[in-house]
Amino acid sequence: MPKKIRLGIVGGGGDSLIGVLHRVASFINDNYVITSAVFAPEFEKSIEFAEEIDIPTDRIYKDFDTMIAEEMKLPEDQRMQVCSVLTPNFLHFPMAKKLLENGFHVICEKPMTTNYDEATTLRDTWKKAGTVFAVTHTYTGYPMVRQMREMIKAGELGPIHKVDASYYQGWINPIIHDAEKRANTWRLDPAKAGISSCMGDIGVHAFNMIEFTTGLSIQSVLCDFNYLYDDNAMDVDGTVLIRMAKHVKGVIRASQVATGEENGLTIKIYGSKGALKWEQENPNFLYYMQEDKPLQVLKPGHAYNSELSLDGTKLPPGHPEGIFDAMANIYLGVARAIRGEEYNDGEFPTMRDGVRGLNFIEASVFSHQRGNVWIPLDPA
Amino acid sequence: MPKKIRLGIVGGGGDSLIGVLHRVASFINDNYVITSAVFAPEFEKSIEFAEEIDIPTDRIYKDFDTMIAEEMKLPEDQRMQVCSVLTPNFLHFPMAKKLLENGFHVICEKPMTTNYDEATTLRDTWKKAGTVFAVTHTYTGYPMVRQMREMIKAGELGPIHKVDASYYQGWINPIIHDAEKRANTWRLDPAKAGISSCMGDIGVHAFNMIEFTTGLSIQSVLCDFNYLYDDNAMDVDGTVLIRMAKHVKGVIRASQVATGEENGLTIKIYGSKGALKWEQENPNFLYYMQEDKPLQVLKPGHAYNSELSLDGTKLPPGHPEGIFDAMANIYLGVARAIRGEEYNDGEFPTMRDGVRGLNFIEASVFSHQRGNVWIPLDPA
Amino acid sequence: MPKKIRLGIVGGGGDSLIGVLHRVASFINDNYVITSAVFAPEFEKSIEFAEEIDIPTDRIYKDFDTMIAEEMKLPEDQRMQVCSVLTPNFLHFPMAKKLLENGFHVICEKPMTTNYDEATTLRDTWKKAGTVFAVTHTYTGYPMVRQMREMIKAGELGPIHKVDASYYQGWINPIIHDAEKRANTWRLDPAKAGISSCMGDIGVHAFNMIEFTTGLSIQSVLCDFNYLYDDNAMDVDGTVLIRMAKHVKGVIRASQVATGEENGLTIKIYGSKGALKWEQENPNFLYYMQEDKPLQVLKPGHAYNSELSLDGTKLPPGHPEGIFDAMANIYLGVARAIRGEEYNDGEFPTMRDGVRGLNFIEASVFSHQRGNVWIPLDPA
Amino acid sequence: MPKKIRLGIVGGGGDSLIGVLHRVASFINDNYVITSAVFAPEFEKSIEFAEEIDIPTDRIYKDFDTMIAEEMKLPEDQRMQVCSVLTPNFLHFPMAKKLLENGFHVICEKPMTTNYDEATTLRDTWKKAGTVFAVTHTYTGYPMVRQMREMIKAGELGPIHKVDASYYQGWINPIIHDAEKRANTWRLDPAKAGISSCMGDIGVHAFNMIEFTTGLSIQSVLCDFNYLYDDNAMDVDGTVLIRMAKHVKGVIRASQVATGEENGLTIKIYGSKGALKWEQENPNFLYYMQEDKPLQVLKPGHAYNSELSLDGTKLPPGHPEGIFDAMANIYLGVARAIRGEEYNDGEFPTMRDGVRGLNFIEASVFSHQRGNVWIPLDPA
Repeated sequence: MPKKIRLGIVGGGGDSLIGVLHRVASFINDNYVITSAVFAPEFEKSIEFAEEIDIPTDRIYKDFDTMIAEEMKLPEDQRMQVCSVLTPNFLHFPMAKKLLENGFHVICEKPMTTNYDEATTLRDTWKKAGTVFAVTHTYTGYPMVRQMREMIKAGELGPIHKVDASYYQGWINPIIHDAEKRANTWRLDPAKAGISSCMGDIGVHAFNMIEFTTGLSIQSVLCDFNYLYDDNAMDVDGTVLIRMAKHVKGVIRASQVATGEENGLTIKIYGSKGALKWEQENPNFLYYMQEDKPLQVLKPGHAYNSELSLDGTKLPPGHPEGIFDAMANIYLGVARAIRGEEYNDGEFPTMRDGVRGLNFIEASVFSHQRGNVWIPLDPA
Repeated sequence: MPKKIRLGIVGGGGDSLIGVLHRVASFINDNYVITSAVFAPEFEKSIEFAEEIDIPTDRIYKDFDTMIAEEMKLPEDQRMQVCSVLTPNFLHFPMAKKLLENGFHVICEKPMTTNYDEATTLRDTWKKAGTVFAVTHTYTGYPMVRQMREMIKAGELGPIHKVDASYYQGWINPIIHDAEKRANTWRLDPAKAGISSCMGDIGVHAFNMIEFTTGLSIQSVLCDFNYLYDDNAMDVDGTVLIRMAKHVKGVIRASQVATGEENGLTIKIYGSKGALKWEQENPNFLYYMQEDKPLQVLKPGHAYNSELSLDGTKLPPGHPEGIFDAMANIYLGVARAIRGEEYNDGEFPTMRDGVRGLNFIEASVFSHQRGNVWIPLDPA
Repeated sequence: MPKKIRLGIVGGGGDSLIGVLHRVASFINDNYVITSAVFAPEFEKSIEFAEEIDIPTDRIYKDFDTMIAEEMKLPEDQRMQVCSVLTPNFLHFPMAKKLLENGFHVICEKPMTTNYDEATTLRDTWKKAGTVFAVTHTYTGYPMVRQMREMIKAGELGPIHKVDASYYQGWINPIIHDAEKRANTWRLDPAKAGISSCMGDIGVHAFNMIEFTTGLSIQSVLCDFNYLYDDNAMDVDGTVLIRMAKHVKGVIRASQVATGEENGLTIKIYGSKGALKWEQENPNFLYYMQEDKPLQVLKPGHAYNSELSLDGTKLPPGHPEGIFDAMANIYLGVARAIRGEEYNDGEFPTMRDGVRGLNFIEASVFSHQRGNVWIPLDPA
Repeated sequence: MPKKIRLGIVGGGGDSLIGVLHRVASFINDNYVITSAVFAPEFEKSIEFAEEIDIPTDRIYKDFDTMIAEEMKLPEDQRMQVCSVLTPNFLHFPMAKKLLENGFHVICEKPMTTNYDEATTLRDTWKKAGTVFAVTHTYTGYPMVRQMREMIKAGELGPIHKVDASYYQGWINPIIHDAEKRANTWRLDPAKAGISSCMGDIGVHAFNMIEFTTGLSIQSVLCDFNYLYDDNAMDVDGTVLIRMAKHVKGVIRASQVATGEENGLTIKIYGSKGALKWEQENPNFLYYMQEDKPLQVLKPGHAYNSELSLDGTKLPPGHPEGIFDAMANIYLGVARAIRGEEYNDGEFPTMRDGVRGLNFIEASVFSHQRGNVWIPLDPA
């Protein structure tokens, strides 16, 4: 009967949505207790938020460096064990790095870093640290995504020859078509938001989903972005041709100007024997197709699912679980890893996923900039 | 910045599903802390479970009566404030009653009591107590169910003239067709499970959903059950004709032998100006129909939703929330009520819902037993 | 290589929708040629319509009696062989009767007659005539409805214990809520429209669908209608409890005030081993459910379908066929029967379906009028 | 009251599926009578087929050239007016050309020719002929596809900035993975099947659908094919990046190895104000999205549809029409054009569509062969 894991949080205070998502996820399986936090850049706001959610304020710190310094002074059995990094993107790298260097486990929001160099550096740091590192590609925590991975691993689709993933949103549409608004959104300012908007924020989820479910590595990409206006420097739409192996190809489509779309992450995997389809907005339905047989619709919680999938379902079939439950599944896997318990590959996205994602984003940008040519990714 | 509410739990230990659902729901909005519990009939198991979920064991009690006695000795600002009753059905009534009599707020699982007499008695007790009482008709916590209620209240459908709700499951199918199994299932033993299986367990949800969304009261019922076998004494399937007002009619269908159905709660409400449809297994989609206009599909989190609906959504559109989130919404409403904060009618099902439900179940049974005649319900 | 069958038509001229449906259906499989017709009560309009659709006018007759008289004078190898009766409901009976008495085959629109007495009389006439008689319950012609029938016949669902069919439309909604309109619609005038509006026009389709797919006979009904207004004498909504055998029960729901519904005929059949669901507005998808197995979605044209189903599909999977094709399948079966070729039971609805339908409608009306009591149907 | 148009048919005999589709389509609106035909290369088979479908055999010819020669001898008011060309692909060009040169109207199956040169030549011939020419991109005949076109034309989506169309089938999957089968399929033999399998057969439909609905012209393409095996010379899968104007981009995805897919043509069009989605296998549902408003689902036959859409629906809402009805709509438009009646742009695909399609196919092949570079299409 293990004690709860002592969890630190940086960022995620106030009305941060990502804060709610991580906090709830940490509660769901009774594995974590929040002991330490810097919820906001201003100390008073951090304290205020801690009081709002009614947790002890004695280990709410004025800033991240203080947090590390003070926690390191605590005896190991009281010290924070793992820290969730929920700060703005550019802070992920330095914070995660320092956490690893001080021997903490890390749960890092996505994108793991702002560029590929940082990502590989962080990987090196992590290798030395030897602690648990998770990057929260939340969607991999859905039971039916896990089921895809296990069915493919078990060979139920035969060799894969075609993949097709998309992530369509429409939220930037009202901004991009207004000259003033698009000039003043930090998301479209490369200085603040990094090298890519659409591919970096959401396309990378589609990329990750493909590698997560198929177990294959994307080897090269050819990308065409759409900026929509001459005075806009960031991609708000893009399509990426991908090659995964000889005769294994596919496409990733991402958009922030797909008017009216909400959070349309979809994936289709075609193999010689069968195919699978999944949509994030209907996460509890997995479509399994075989030539000349009726389409099958798999749902969570049934005994026909794999162990990895069933592990991610708390209630019997027909009781819809959602994105908080998906994130909770990731936190569950991390808890097991931290405690040195057995866990399955696939219970949480790792450093490898983070590094691959940055490689993909950068390669896509290069491909577009160089005139839509093929750019290889590093070997996985 | 309020302190967390001190929550007690009776039942729900071990691998109880209802236990997980309530516990997670209490965590989700940072409003509750579990201070006191009797998780299981055996004291050691209760302690063991408390350790498993890593909560303090000092206020884990050996039984319910001890719990009440000991908590009453505590100063008011340390004492348990509300207790979730998750025990077997026949214990709901005595426990809820005692809790109310001692001035506690109560969150009671459904069915509130085993018969209508108990229900009205409990209502009297509660009226004297003046505390908060919620019965967990979980499905009313879904944002799109709340949206139905608010749209109907706002007159968007015009006067309602037809309702149609169903709750189809298939889980008893493998049991009912096996003579030995059906003889040995407590669910089909009236001595253990009460007067109704199908209508009492699930039909009542459909009933509640109709009254919750329309704001109307069902006035009389005509019911036909199906027992499937001569040696089976409990309804496993049934259809109830309902009358809500002159010229306002409808039907409730419930089944535990709807082979292959999981948790198929559906509701359709038709008014002179428009209609609404909703399905529990796709809870984030609400279908709004008007004559000669395109069907509209409403989803949670959009500004076009009512305040009551939006209050139940934590993330932006396109991030599916599920049944844990629905229950969490109910716990949120209860927290507000306990704290004396403002809250909207409809944030949680009340004593009225509990009493009405038992009245419906009993009337349905009588109707069937007396040869499918109309049985009036008491005025709401 | 058979010659085309000589087809007569009464009714269906002008912009009659039923006229288009039958005419196109007769063309689709190259089996019929229209030789003879009375398209409209006024001779000139009949001629005009024949010219409009460019068919010879020499055998367009001034009225039905003349049609019969003149056709009987023709040599048998030129005489009309079969006649489609598309006239207003009250004319179905006398026309079909006279056709049968003169030795013609008959394709009769639904309802076959205006009451049960006429229906049984017509059955007697038909038995003497010995010709082919079809009543156009069009929906039985859909390939996936045929597939339901064959799967159930083959025992794939095990013994059936529950059926649930509905037919929801909303078209009368704008009429019924307007006092003047509802007073002046022939559909709501018992003198013109017969004893039932909703159950007679559409509920009977749901009834027929149940008997067609399950092969079982409904034995008794208990019906509750809704008239919506005191000054309205015709049912515009109704629910019928049905019993098919001991422990085999179900429900038929029909409505013309289900606001926003178009042509919502649905059917669900539950057996001990499996279940099937089908919806008329998505006719090319059949849902097959089994306990603890993934839902299967069957589609037309696949080799896994039955012979009867495949016979009703002209193109490969994925090419949607619709209601014209369903009616064409019925005409194809009738053509085979007329030619004395082999055909399968189920290729077209017969006199039995017509008689049963009228029995059902009348029994439903009696049940409601007598205070929602059980009314037995005649043995099938 | 016009006489029926005298229709000739080349090809389409025996159990030809395309033959059934065209024949039925010609019947549906009472506009055509088949007077002349060469159903098969062997004269006896042609005669036999004519007898099978019971049409006069006096103008069934032994070959195409005889057909032309003999028909030209007939007086103009008896002569075939239009001819449907349903022969193998390589015969489309010479036959259509000769038909046009002799002053006939032509309905030509798709692909119009086997290469772009032939297509432009045919266009020149047609310009001289001045007759009606239709190429049967059948899917443009669906009422909801027409509705897309009209809504976009009316500006309801605002300026279009993104298009995404796909055509996924899986039928070649069992062939392509079998070395012997793939070596012996004429579809994968460039000598017999032309320069492209997947893009030429189905990708071109997605291309046409985009241009038909948006009214925009695709200006350049970048294509990557997948052959799946080294010994296979024909594309069985491919993705095409497209550019339609500055800042207007999109993607066309096509596959014959999308295991388990049947006839998955889909299209999504995104504009600054709204978006539309449609799927061929559910052709009677059109999804209309706007930012922060509920999704709307449009269906055929409602008054809210455009004239062009309504013209393509024969029955009231809720009565599914299918692909035969879509093709019939095209035949209806052609009939109006032949008769010199008024008709709307969009009632049938024209020579322009045929020429554009071949240009697209050829450009896609070049793009792939030259290493996935951008290839411009000719100005439309």
